[in-house]
Amino acid sequence: MSRTHEFHPQHYHRTLGPHAPVLELDPGDELITWTVDARGHDASGRQITPRGNPQTGPFFLRGARPGDVLVLELLELEPSRDWGFSQCFVDPGILDPDQARKLPEPKLLRWELDRDRGVATVADWPEWDIQVPLEPMLGCFGVCPPQGQAISTATSGPHGGNMDCRLCAPGATIYLPVFEPGALFFLGDGHAAQGDGEILGMGIEISMRVRVRLDLVPGWEIRWPRGENAHWLFTLGNARPLMQAVQHATTEMLDWLQRTMELPAHVAHPLLGQRVRYQVGNVFDPAYTMACMLSKEALPPGAKPWRPEHPPAE
Amino acid sequence: MSRTHEFHPQHYHRTLGPHAPVLELDPGDELITWTVDARGHDASGRQITPRGNPQTGPFFLRGARPGDVLVLELLELEPSRDWGFSQCFVDPGILDPDQARKLPEPKLLRWELDRDRGVATVADWPEWDIQVPLEPMLGCFGVCPPQGQAISTATSGPHGGNMDCRLCAPGATIYLPVFEPGALFFLGDGHAAQGDGEILGMGIEISMRVRVRLDLVPGWEIRWPRGENAHWLFTLGNARPLMQAVQHATTEMLDWLQRTMELPAHVAHPLLGQRVRYQVGNVFDPAYTMACMLSKEALPPGAKPWRPEHPPAE
Amino acid sequence: MSRTHEFHPQHYHRTLGPHAPVLELDPGDELITWTVDARGHDASGRQITPRGNPQTGPFFLRGARPGDVLVLELLELEPSRDWGFSQCFVDPGILDPDQARKLPEPKLLRWELDRDRGVATVADWPEWDIQVPLEPMLGCFGVCPPQGQAISTATSGPHGGNMDCRLCAPGATIYLPVFEPGALFFLGDGHAAQGDGEILGMGIEISMRVRVRLDLVPGWEIRWPRGENAHWLFTLGNARPLMQAVQHATTEMLDWLQRTMELPAHVAHPLLGQRVRYQVGNVFDPAYTMACMLSKEALPPGAKPWRPEHPPAE
Amino acid sequence: MSRTHEFHPQHYHRTLGPHAPVLELDPGDELITWTVDARGHDASGRQITPRGNPQTGPFFLRGARPGDVLVLELLELEPSRDWGFSQCFVDPGILDPDQARKLPEPKLLRWELDRDRGVATVADWPEWDIQVPLEPMLGCFGVCPPQGQAISTATSGPHGGNMDCRLCAPGATIYLPVFEPGALFFLGDGHAAQGDGEILGMGIEISMRVRVRLDLVPGWEIRWPRGENAHWLFTLGNARPLMQAVQHATTEMLDWLQRTMELPAHVAHPLLGQRVRYQVGNVFDPAYTMACMLSKEALPPGAKPWRPEHPPAE
Repeated sequence: MSRTHEFHPQHYHRTLGPHAPVLELDPGDELITWTVDARGHDASGRQITPRGNPQTGPFFLRGARPGDVLVLELLELEPSRDWGFSQCFVDPGILDPDQARKLPEPKLLRWELDRDRGVATVADWPEWDIQVPLEPMLGCFGVCPPQGQAISTATSGPHGGNMDCRLCAPGATIYLPVFEPGALFFLGDGHAAQGDGEILGMGIEISMRVRVRLDLVPGWEIRWPRGENAHWLFTLGNARPLMQAVQHATTEMLDWLQRTMELPAHVAHPLLGQRVRYQVGNVFDPAYTMACMLSKEALPPGAKPWRPEHPPAE
Repeated sequence: MSRTHEFHPQHYHRTLGPHAPVLELDPGDELITWTVDARGHDASGRQITPRGNPQTGPFFLRGARPGDVLVLELLELEPSRDWGFSQCFVDPGILDPDQARKLPEPKLLRWELDRDRGVATVADWPEWDIQVPLEPMLGCFGVCPPQGQAISTATSGPHGGNMDCRLCAPGATIYLPVFEPGALFFLGDGHAAQGDGEILGMGIEISMRVRVRLDLVPGWEIRWPRGENAHWLFTLGNARPLMQAVQHATTEMLDWLQRTMELPAHVAHPLLGQRVRYQVGNVFDPAYTMACMLSKEALPPGAKPWRPEHPPAE
Repeated sequence: MSRTHEFHPQHYHRTLGPHAPVLELDPGDELITWTVDARGHDASGRQITPRGNPQTGPFFLRGARPGDVLVLELLELEPSRDWGFSQCFVDPGILDPDQARKLPEPKLLRWELDRDRGVATVADWPEWDIQVPLEPMLGCFGVCPPQGQAISTATSGPHGGNMDCRLCAPGATIYLPVFEPGALFFLGDGHAAQGDGEILGMGIEISMRVRVRLDLVPGWEIRWPRGENAHWLFTLGNARPLMQAVQHATTEMLDWLQRTMELPAHVAHPLLGQRVRYQVGNVFDPAYTMACMLSKEALPPGAKPWRPEHPPAE
Repeated sequence: MSRTHEFHPQHYHRTLGPHAPVLELDPGDELITWTVDARGHDASGRQITPRGNPQTGPFFLRGARPGDVLVLELLELEPSRDWGFSQCFVDPGILDPDQARKLPEPKLLRWELDRDRGVATVADWPEWDIQVPLEPMLGCFGVCPPQGQAISTATSGPHGGNMDCRLCAPGATIYLPVFEPGALFFLGDGHAAQGDGEILGMGIEISMRVRVRLDLVPGWEIRWPRGENAHWLFTLGNARPLMQAVQHATTEMLDWLQRTMELPAHVAHPLLGQRVRYQVGNVFDPAYTMACMLSKEALPPGAKPWRPEHPPAE
C-alpha cells in the first residue's frame, strides 16, 4: 500500500531545523526528488539558490515521534548532469602546517562524468589521464535537530548533516534518531565520487536525482546515525577532534551490539576490538565524521537482530 | 648471490636505539628469525624477557647510510604457537568519556588459533561463537632513530616503531628512512589478527617466526615510512592527535607523488583527493598511526616509478 | 541622550537565533535586566523555564547591520540570590581516561554566597573550610548567528555563546561581530565564580541582575569576539579541539594588531610572541574557549587605536 | 654541611638518557653551572655544540632511587650575555591553517638585553619601540627517563624535558620523579623571556649562568613534574593534543590533593574546580605543556603538607 511520491523542489534550506514541511509521507513510501549541488546549481548548471549544501525538503514522516528512528533506504542516486567540480588542492588543514605555505592559490576544477565508462575525468589537462570511478553518494542529509536548533549544512551532529561519508551510497540503509514530530528529513550535496576524508574540501560536486524509501522504527533509542549495506553494519560519529568522532562511533557500535543485539560486554568488546574497521568520512568540515564498521558475518549466532523487529509496546 | 640468514635471538630490546647489532646482512639478503610476544613470551609460552614489545635485533644492513631507504619485504609471518591473548575490553580512551565509568575491570582474554580453519576463537565462552580470521601482522618494527635517541617500543615516529597497522602483513614491502649507518633494523610484537585502531590496546598477541628480505635504496629522501602491497601504495603517519597522523601521512603521499613520481601539484592533489583511502593503524599507543593509501591502478600513465630505479649518483 | 532601560523577561531562549526582539535600544543605551541560572531557576530559586543556559533577550540594537560590531560594556553583574550550585566532581573528559572509572557518581553541590566576606562556601561539609572568592561573570551571551542558524546555548562560535570565560566580568568591554540587522543580543548563565576551564562542567551557577551598556562600531570587520578590560586586550576563540581555539584566538589577535592597529607583521608577531598570555575559558562545552591576551601597556607608541575611532565612511 | 659545586661543562647532550654523570652531589647541595643557548652558542656567542637545546649534565644525586622525587630549587637564572634571538613569526601550527599561506619566510630576530631597565628590545627596527620585560626561565631540564630511553631535548614527558613553561623561573621549586639511580639531572635552553605557548617556536634564547639546589624526597610517588612558587602549587602535563596535557596536569593535581594532602575527593574536586588556573607552557614542541595551578591560600586548614615531611620508613 505504500506509494511513490515525486517532489520538485522550489526552494532550499541551508540549515537543518524546524522548517515547514514540503510533503508528508507514510512509513514505507518512496520518494523521488532532485537536489542541487553544493553551490546551488541545478541539473542545467544554473545557480538557483545560494551556495552552502542547499537542502531539498524537509519531508514529514507521519507517525514519527521523538525516540523513534527514521529509516532511510538509499535506492538510487543519479547525477542529473554530466559535469561536476571540486577544489584542485588539498585543504591546508589536512597537511603539515609548514607545508601549507607552499600550496598554490585555491582554484576550482571541472570534472567530466563519463557514465558509459563509469569514470570522471579532468578536461583541463588532457596530457594527464586522471580517472576517478563514479561512486555517487549523498554528502549532507539528516533530520531536524532537537530543542529548536537550526544547524548549518556545513556541519554535522547526531541529527546527521554534512557527514560526507562514502558509505551513504545506493544500497545503504541509514537509521537516524527522530527529535521532532514528523522527523523533518532533508537531503542534498550529492557527490559523483569522493575520496576518504573529502580532503579537497569537496567531492565531485553534482546535482542529483534521488530515489529513497522512508520508514519508521518506533521506540528504538539511538544516539548517532547507524547504517548498513550488504556487508557492513556501521555507526557514524560526528565531532572534532577526529578522535572524538572515533569515540562517538565506537561507543554507538558497542551500544548497538549490547543493547539492540543483546551481546554481553565480554563478547561485544573483544568481537568488535578484533574485527572493527574504520572509515574516515571527512576531515574537512567543522565536525569530522568517522564510521565504525563491523562485518555482518562477524555477528555470532546468538545475537538478536540488529534492527528491532518487534518494537516495544508503549 | 644473496643469502638467507637464520637468527635465534638471545636477548631483546625495549627501545629502538643505537644498540649493538646482532647480525650483519647485505642488501637483498633474507632473514629468518623469531619474535616473542608483546609481553615477552616465546613459542613455548614462557616469559623470557620483560614485557613491552620486546624487539629482536638490531640487524645491520651493510652500505646503509643516513639519507638512504631500508626496504623491508615481509615474506612470511607465522605464529609460532597456537594461542594468543588480548585485553577483553575497549580502552577507555576510545570511548565517550562518560561511558568509561561503566567499563568492567580490565581482564586478559586467551585466544585459540585454529590454523586449519584460519580463525582465532575464545575458549572461555563456548556459548558464544566468536571467530576472528587469522591475518598475521607485525605491530612494532623499525630502524634506529636519529641523534642518539633510544625510543620506547610503546610508541612510534618517522623511524617506525609501534605502529600497529594491519598493512604491515605478508606481501607488503615497507620503506623506512635510514638515520644511522647500517640502519639497525628491529622487529617484534606480532599479532595473529588485529582490528583497525587496536582498540582493545592489543591485537591477538603472539610469538612469531618471521621471514623477511632487507634491501637498500640509496639516496631516496623520505620523511615517514612508506609501503606497498599488491593493490596499494601507502604512507604511515605517526602522531597524536589523530589528525596530525592524517597530516603526516597525507603530506608524505603528496611528496611521493610529486617528488618521486614527478606528478605536478595540480595533478597529484586532485588525483589523491578524489581517490585516497585511509586506514586507521592504532588509536591506542602514545603516537597514533594513520595510513594514507592510493590504489596503484589510479596512477596516471605519465607517472615515474614509485620506487626509484636509478638512484642518483653521488 | 542615552537612556537606561529596565527589562523584566517573561520567557527565555535556549538557542541564539533569529528570535523576535523583546526590546529595542539605541547605541549607548544602558540596560538593566535579569537572568535565570543555567537550570532555569530565578532569584527566588524557582525553576521557571527548562534548563540549558536560558537566555534573556534578544535585544535589538538600532542601526546595527552585518559587518558592524556590537559593543557590550559589562557594568554590573550581581547575584540575585544568596546560593548557587555546581557539580561536585571534575568531568571525566578532563581527566586521564583510565582515571574516569574511579570517579564517584555525579552529584550536585550547593554553595552559599557570603557577600559580606566576598566568598562562596559549601554548607554540606562544615569540617572542611572551602572558600571561593566571588568573581561574578557571564557564562553565555552573544548575538544572532548568520544564515538562519539557531545555535544551542550549550556551545559557542564567532557569535559568542557559551564561552564560560572569566574575562567576561564587570569592567570588561566585549566586541561581537554583527550578523543580522539589530544584532539581536542575548545573555544568561551567570556564575558567581568559576575556575579556569569550568572543569566541573559548571561554575557556581546563579541567577543575576545585570547592568550593561550596548554600543555600536560601524564597519569594523572582526571574525571572533574581542574584548578589553583595564589591563588586557583579548580575543576569544571557540572550537574543539583546544588547539583550534588557540589558533582562532591567536589569528584574531594578530589581525587586530595588524589590520586595526596597523602594526606591520614583523612587529606584531614578535611582540605578541614574547608577551602573549592565554587564559583557558572552558574545556567542557562542545566548543572549548581560549582567550589570547596582550597587555595594553605592551603596545608600541606607533600603534593605531585598538578600537576604531573614526569608522570608515560608507 | 651542604656544599656548593661549580661545574664548567665540556660537552652537552641532546637527549635526556642514561649518560655518564659529570658530577655527583649530595641532597641539599648547591650547583652553579652554565648552559649554552638552544642553538649551542655560549656566553661569547660562539657555537660550541650542535643546535637542539643542548643540555649541561647529567648530575648524579646521591641516594636518589626510582620512586623518589628529585627537588630542584631554581635559585638564580642569569643571562650570561647581553643578546638573544628568536624566530620573527608565529609558527604556522598556531594559526588558522588558511592563514599560514600568508606567513612571510621565517627569519631570525636578534634581541638586545638591557639589564638595567630589565627589558629586551629589537635593534633592527628602531622606529618601533618593542619592549619585553626580562623574566629568565629554563626551557628544558629534567631527569633520565625510565627503561633505557634516551629522549630528545625537543620534546617532554613525565621526566621533564622541553616544557618551555614560564613557571620554571627563579623562586620556583620543581619536583621530578626519579626513574634511575642518581636521577641524572640535566638542564639547558634558557630564555630571557617567553610568551605563553612559545608561539614563535622560541623564547628569547640565551646562554645562562644557573644556580640551583638539588634535594631528595624519598618514597614520594608522583607521575608528572610538580612545582611551587611563592603563590602557586602547580603540576605540569606534557602531551599532544593540548587537551591531553590538560588531562595529565589536572589528574596529577587531584592526586596531589587527595593522596599527598589527604583531602577527600568530594573536597578536592570542587575546590580545584572552582579555583583552578591553567597556564599554557608551550604549544609548539612535539609534546605541548600545560600547567594546572592552585593558589596555596586556597588550601583548607585540614590539608596535610603538600610536600611530605616525614617520608615513609622503608
